[in-house]
Amino acid sequence: MVKVGIIGATGYAGGELVRLLKNHKYAQIVWYGSRSYIDKKYHQVYQNMFRIVEDVCRDDNLEEMADQVDVIFTATPQGFLAGLLKEELLSKVKIVDLSADYRIKDVSVYEKWYGIEHKSPQFIPEAVYGLCEINRDKVTPATRLIANPGCYTTCSILTAYPLVKEGVIDVDTLIIDAKSGTSGAGRGAKVQNLFCEVNENMKAYGVASHRHTPEIEEQLGYAAGRGVTLSFTPHLVPMNRGILVTEYASLRRNPDGSLPSYEEIRAVYDRYYGKEHFVRVLDKDVCPETKWVEGSNYVDIGFVVDERTGRIIMMGALDNLVKGAAGQAVQNMNLLFGLEESEGLDLIPCFP
Amino acid sequence: MVKVGIIGATGYAGGELVRLLKNHKYAQIVWYGSRSYIDKKYHQVYQNMFRIVEDVCRDDNLEEMADQVDVIFTATPQGFLAGLLKEELLSKVKIVDLSADYRIKDVSVYEKWYGIEHKSPQFIPEAVYGLCEINRDKVTPATRLIANPGCYTTCSILTAYPLVKEGVIDVDTLIIDAKSGTSGAGRGAKVQNLFCEVNENMKAYGVASHRHTPEIEEQLGYAAGRGVTLSFTPHLVPMNRGILVTEYASLRRNPDGSLPSYEEIRAVYDRYYGKEHFVRVLDKDVCPETKWVEGSNYVDIGFVVDERTGRIIMMGALDNLVKGAAGQAVQNMNLLFGLEESEGLDLIPCFP
Amino acid sequence: MVKVGIIGATGYAGGELVRLLKNHKYAQIVWYGSRSYIDKKYHQVYQNMFRIVEDVCRDDNLEEMADQVDVIFTATPQGFLAGLLKEELLSKVKIVDLSADYRIKDVSVYEKWYGIEHKSPQFIPEAVYGLCEINRDKVTPATRLIANPGCYTTCSILTAYPLVKEGVIDVDTLIIDAKSGTSGAGRGAKVQNLFCEVNENMKAYGVASHRHTPEIEEQLGYAAGRGVTLSFTPHLVPMNRGILVTEYASLRRNPDGSLPSYEEIRAVYDRYYGKEHFVRVLDKDVCPETKWVEGSNYVDIGFVVDERTGRIIMMGALDNLVKGAAGQAVQNMNLLFGLEESEGLDLIPCFP
Amino acid sequence: MVKVGIIGATGYAGGELVRLLKNHKYAQIVWYGSRSYIDKKYHQVYQNMFRIVEDVCRDDNLEEMADQVDVIFTATPQGFLAGLLKEELLSKVKIVDLSADYRIKDVSVYEKWYGIEHKSPQFIPEAVYGLCEINRDKVTPATRLIANPGCYTTCSILTAYPLVKEGVIDVDTLIIDAKSGTSGAGRGAKVQNLFCEVNENMKAYGVASHRHTPEIEEQLGYAAGRGVTLSFTPHLVPMNRGILVTEYASLRRNPDGSLPSYEEIRAVYDRYYGKEHFVRVLDKDVCPETKWVEGSNYVDIGFVVDERTGRIIMMGALDNLVKGAAGQAVQNMNLLFGLEESEGLDLIPCFP
Repeated sequence: MVKVGIIGATGYAGGELVRLLKNHKYAQIVWYGSRSYIDKKYHQVYQNMFRIVEDVCRDDNLEEMADQVDVIFTATPQGFLAGLLKEELLSKVKIVDLSADYRIKDVSVYEKWYGIEHKSPQFIPEAVYGLCEINRDKVTPATRLIANPGCYTTCSILTAYPLVKEGVIDVDTLIIDAKSGTSGAGRGAKVQNLFCEVNENMKAYGVASHRHTPEIEEQLGYAAGRGVTLSFTPHLVPMNRGILVTEYASLRRNPDGSLPSYEEIRAVYDRYYGKEHFVRVLDKDVCPETKWVEGSNYVDIGFVVDERTGRIIMMGALDNLVKGAAGQAVQNMNLLFGLEESEGLDLIPCFP
Repeated sequence: MVKVGIIGATGYAGGELVRLLKNHKYAQIVWYGSRSYIDKKYHQVYQNMFRIVEDVCRDDNLEEMADQVDVIFTATPQGFLAGLLKEELLSKVKIVDLSADYRIKDVSVYEKWYGIEHKSPQFIPEAVYGLCEINRDKVTPATRLIANPGCYTTCSILTAYPLVKEGVIDVDTLIIDAKSGTSGAGRGAKVQNLFCEVNENMKAYGVASHRHTPEIEEQLGYAAGRGVTLSFTPHLVPMNRGILVTEYASLRRNPDGSLPSYEEIRAVYDRYYGKEHFVRVLDKDVCPETKWVEGSNYVDIGFVVDERTGRIIMMGALDNLVKGAAGQAVQNMNLLFGLEESEGLDLIPCFP
Repeated sequence: MVKVGIIGATGYAGGELVRLLKNHKYAQIVWYGSRSYIDKKYHQVYQNMFRIVEDVCRDDNLEEMADQVDVIFTATPQGFLAGLLKEELLSKVKIVDLSADYRIKDVSVYEKWYGIEHKSPQFIPEAVYGLCEINRDKVTPATRLIANPGCYTTCSILTAYPLVKEGVIDVDTLIIDAKSGTSGAGRGAKVQNLFCEVNENMKAYGVASHRHTPEIEEQLGYAAGRGVTLSFTPHLVPMNRGILVTEYASLRRNPDGSLPSYEEIRAVYDRYYGKEHFVRVLDKDVCPETKWVEGSNYVDIGFVVDERTGRIIMMGALDNLVKGAAGQAVQNMNLLFGLEESEGLDLIPCFP
Repeated sequence: MVKVGIIGATGYAGGELVRLLKNHKYAQIVWYGSRSYIDKKYHQVYQNMFRIVEDVCRDDNLEEMADQVDVIFTATPQGFLAGLLKEELLSKVKIVDLSADYRIKDVSVYEKWYGIEHKSPQFIPEAVYGLCEINRDKVTPATRLIANPGCYTTCSILTAYPLVKEGVIDVDTLIIDAKSGTSGAGRGAKVQNLFCEVNENMKAYGVASHRHTPEIEEQLGYAAGRGVTLSFTPHLVPMNRGILVTEYASLRRNPDGSLPSYEEIRAVYDRYYGKEHFVRVLDKDVCPETKWVEGSNYVDIGFVVDERTGRIIMMGALDNLVKGAAGQAVQNMNLLFGLEESEGLDLIPCFP
C-alpha cells in the first residue's frame, strides 16, 4: 500500500486527487494537508466526501509528512515547493509536484514567465516531466521528483506531438487556441471567478503572455529537435471542467506539392497513440467534445485536413482536473511505484 | 456473470445504466437496445464510450432478448412494457422496469394520471416497488418484476419516510417543492428542452398534476397506514443532473405542547438510515446540495426544525440519473441476483 | 433633470441602477460612489459601460453628495445608511435605500434578524416601504426616505398580496419556497459564490432564518390585518438573474364547503393588478418563468387551484436586479419627483 | 412610420427583431409571420411579450405582405427568399434578408458551400451586403435588397478589416477561431442543441467547412484587393448569446525588420472606427468579453501584438442576435429609410 500525503488537499486539484485515490486499490491517503482548514474535517470542506473521508485537515509540514508517507503530492501555488525542497526530503520520499516549479529546464525562462525567483534550481535537472505518454521510460521506481504537467500543456502537447515529432507540420506556424472550464482557475475567492462574472460570458486572457506557453514550447521543442516559438491563447468558458484546444499549423507538402492525406496523418497518430490507454484518436470527422472525457483520464484527439489552406486543424479535449492534473499525477505515481499505469484511473466519462 | 439487456440504451437513463454496468464486476451487457439507432455503434451515439463499448445498437425484441439475458432493464416510455409483458417472458428473465408501468398498485390511479390504458394489469400485484431502503426484503432472487421508482419519487419519499412512518409529522400538511436538472426530461428533441430555453431560466411545471404525485402518495400512504394526499410541485433548473426536494410539514407536538427537538428527530432518521449505505443524513445545519451527490448513488438528507411556525423543513438531494434511475436499477439487480447491494455503485460524487 | 448620487455604484444593484438611469430621460447620475474603486473610471470596473459612462468612481461622502444631488441611492450593506443618516441630510436630499435598514418598523425585529444595532431608529417611522403597487399613495414628492423592498420580498409579497388582503387564503398555512439567481448574493469575492461552486448545483440556505422573512411577514400582516408567521426558504440557482417563488396556502372554503374557483380568484388578482403596469397576471395554466422577465421591471404571476388538496399554488417571477432592486428604486424615484411612474422602465424582457 | 413585416418572427432572430422594433420610434410591426404558429398569439410563443405584443402569428405570404408593409425582414432558412423573390416584390417593398441567399456575389460559391441551387441569382448583383460600418454609402433609400451579414461573419470581418485594408497583416496567414453561444443554432428541436448536450460542454464543428467562411473571405478579399483564403473554425459554447472571435495573423514587418507598434496599429483601428457608433475599440490590454456587449448592438475589439511570434492576436465580441442579426438588420432598415442609423439601437449591455 502506497502511503500518500497531499499538500493543498482542499483546492480543486487536491480534491480530485482525493476522489481518485479513494478509488485506488494500492494507495492510502494518510495526510490531508490544507493550511486554510487545519483541524477541520475534510468532508466539512467537501461535503461530497461525507461518510467517505473521516480525516481531519492538517498543516503542510513537509518534513514531518516525509516521515509518514511514500509519496507527496504538492497541489500548491508556484514557488511553494521550490522554496522548501531539500535533498533530505527527496531522500525519504517521492514527490509529484502539480505546480510548475520543476517543469521548465531553463531556470531563467521559469523566472521570466513566472516573475519569481526559483529557490532550488539544483533539483531541476533531476525532475522528470511527467507526461507519461511521452516520457514513460523516465518515470520509474528510481525517479524521485516528478514535474506534473499543466492542464493546458498536457492537452496542447499531446494533440500536436506526433505531427511535430514526425515533421508532418511546420512547427513555426503552430497556433494553439485553448478553451478552459473555470475550475482551472482554482478555488481562490476572486471577483473574476464569481458565478455571475463567468456565466454567460467568454473571454481570452493572458494573451501572448500565459505561463503555460514556455512549457509547451519546451516539450514540443524536444519533439522538433530545435527551439519552437508558438502562439498560445487561453480562454475562459462557462463550464466547470474541461479543456479544448484547437491547433492550427501548415502541413509540410510532399515533394510533388501535394498535401499528406487524412489516412497518412492518421497513421502517424496511430503509431504513437494506438496502444495508449488514455489517448483516444477519434474516428474521421468526429470532433472532440469536453463532455465526452469529463471525469476521466482520457485525452480525445481529432483532426481535419484543410485542402484549401494547406493547414491541419488538430483538436484535443481532456478534463483539466483529471488528465490535466490529478489523474496524471496518479498515473505518474503508479509508474513511480511499479504499479499498473492505469490503476485507479479506469474512469468512464460521465454524460450528460 | 449476470447477462444484461437494455431497452432504451441510448436515452439518458439507458446511457447511465451502461456507465454503471461497465464498472460492475458481475454484470455484462449483451444487448444494447435502441430502436432509433439500430446497427449504429453505441459509441457513435455516446462518444464518451469510444474504446469502452464496441457493441452495436439493436432493436427492442423482448422475446429474443429474453433468451439471451438474465435481466432486462426497460428504460422506455410509459406503456411500452405494459403493452408487451407476458407470463412467458417473466418465466425466462427478470425485468427491472424504469418506467411507471408497474409502480402504482391501483390501476385506475395509473390510468387517470398517465392518461393511457394499462395493457397488462395482471402483473401489477406481483411487481415489487424497488425502493430498496424500504422494500429490501421483497427484492429477492425469487422476485421477477421490479417497478423501479421515479427520480422525483425516490427523493421525495426517502426524505420524509421515517417521519411519516413514526408519526412525527402531520402528513396532511406535507408539501413537496422539488427542483430537477434537465436530464430528467429525457433526450427527446423538444423545443422546451433546448439549451437556450432552459439556460438562465427556471419554472414550475405540472403544477398539481405531475404524474409522480400518486406514486409518492401511495408509498407514503403505506408508511402512514392510511391514504395520503399531498402537494407536489416540480421545477426545471438549468443544470444537467440533480434533484433537490424541499419538504414542509407541521410537526406533531408533544402532549405538553412542545415540539420535538432536533435531536429527537435526528434519532428517528438515524434509526432508519443509520446503516443505509446510500442514504447520508447530513450533520446539523448542513443543507444538501445536488453537486455533492453528482454521479453517485447517494441521497443526502438534512432538516431544520422551525420553532416559529412549528414546521419542519426536510431537504433531500440525489442524482436523478443514478439513485433516481440507473443506480437504483442496478441496486435492485444486485439484490435480485443475490449480489452485494452496493456492487458497482461505490461511486464517489464528483466535485466540482 | 433629477440629479442622482449612487453609493455602492459598483455592486450588482448599483451597476443596474446605472444601466437604468442612463436610459432615463429626466435623471442624470452625477456621483458614482464606490469606496473600492475610488478614482478608477467606472467603465474600467464594468466594461459594458465603455464609451457610455466616462465618469470616475468617487468615495461615499454622504454630506458632500447631498449638496450636489437631488436623490441618493444607497446600494450598500445593512447598517451603512443607519449609521450615517441625519436630519440634516434628509433636509437636503431624498434617499432611496436599497438596504434593509428602514424596511422593518419594529426595530427590535430588525436587530434580532440582522444581528446588528440600529443606529438611527428615529427615522424608521418616517421611512416609506417603497412597494409602489401597494404603497403608491405614500410615495410622493413630500416623501424623504424610501425603504426599497428586497428582491425575495417584492416577489413573495406581490404574489400573495391580493389573496391575503381579501382573505381568500388561510395565511397561517402560507409557505414560500423561493429560488434565486446568484447575482442576489452580490459581487463580494466569496468561495461559495465562485462559478464552480454554484454551477451545476442547487441548495437551500438560510432555512427558517433568512432575513427577508420578517419583512414579508410585516407587509402581509398589514394586508391580513393581524400578525403573520410563515415559512420562507430561499434557494440558490445556477443562473445570473431571476427570482421564482412558489407559494402554497390552503384556500378558505365557501360556506357550502366548495373551493373558490379559478375565475373567482383570478377576479381578485385582476382587481388589484389589472391596471398595474409592472404586474402581469398570466393566462390560465401558464406558469411564470424567470427568463420571461429578465432585464425588465415586470413581475409575472400565475396560480393553480388544487382541488385535491384544497390548496392554491401561487407563482411569481421577477428579475432580482430590476424589480427586485434597481428598477423598483427608479420606480420610487419617479414617484418622489412627480414623474411618470414607468419612466425609464419600459424595458422589454430579453429572450433567450 | 415604417411598416414592417417579419417572416420567421418566432425564431430567435425573429424574436429579437420584435424586441428591438417595439422600442423603435419610427417602426411598427404589422405582420408577424410564423408558419409554425399561424393564428396563435405571438406572446403565447414568447411569453416575455405578454401584454407587449397582442398580435397573432400569420403565414408567410410574401405577396400579400408586400402590399401592407414598407420593409420585410426574412429571418428564414437558406433558400427561402431566393425561391420566392421576384421583381414585382422588390418594386413594392424593401427586403432585409437575414439568410445567406444574397450575401455571396459568386453564385457558384454559394451553391457549393450551401449545397443548394440558387433560384433567383439575377438579384444577387443588386443586393447590398449590409455591413454598415463598411458599406454604409451603399445602404440608401434607393436600395431595395439588403443581404444582412451573418453573426460569425460580422464579428470576424469587423475585427480584422482595418488591418487587412491597410496591409498591416499578411492576410494569407489569417486564422479565425470563433466561439458562439447556442442561440446561433436557432430554435429548431434538435438533439444536439438540447440543454444537456450543450451545457458543461464545448466543441468545434464545421471545421474547414463552415458556410460563413466564403462570406468572410469575400468581404476581406475586397479589403485586401485580391482573393483571400483563410481558416475559420466555429465552436459551440454553453451560453445563450455572444460570439467571440480570436484572430491570428502575421504582422507585416517594417523595412527595418521591426514590427509595427501597438500605437501604430491602434491608430489604424481608430481611423476606421473612431467615429463608429457601434464599434468600440477597447483600451490597451483589455480583452473583449461577450457579456459586455450582451443585448446591445456593439462590437468590442481588442488586440495584442506578440513580439515573440511576430503575430497579432485580434479579438472581437458581439451579441449574435443583435449586431449579429436583428440589430444589424434594424441598422440597415434605418439607413434604407433615411432615419438616424442608431435609432432603436441605443441599447446598454446588460451585466451580469
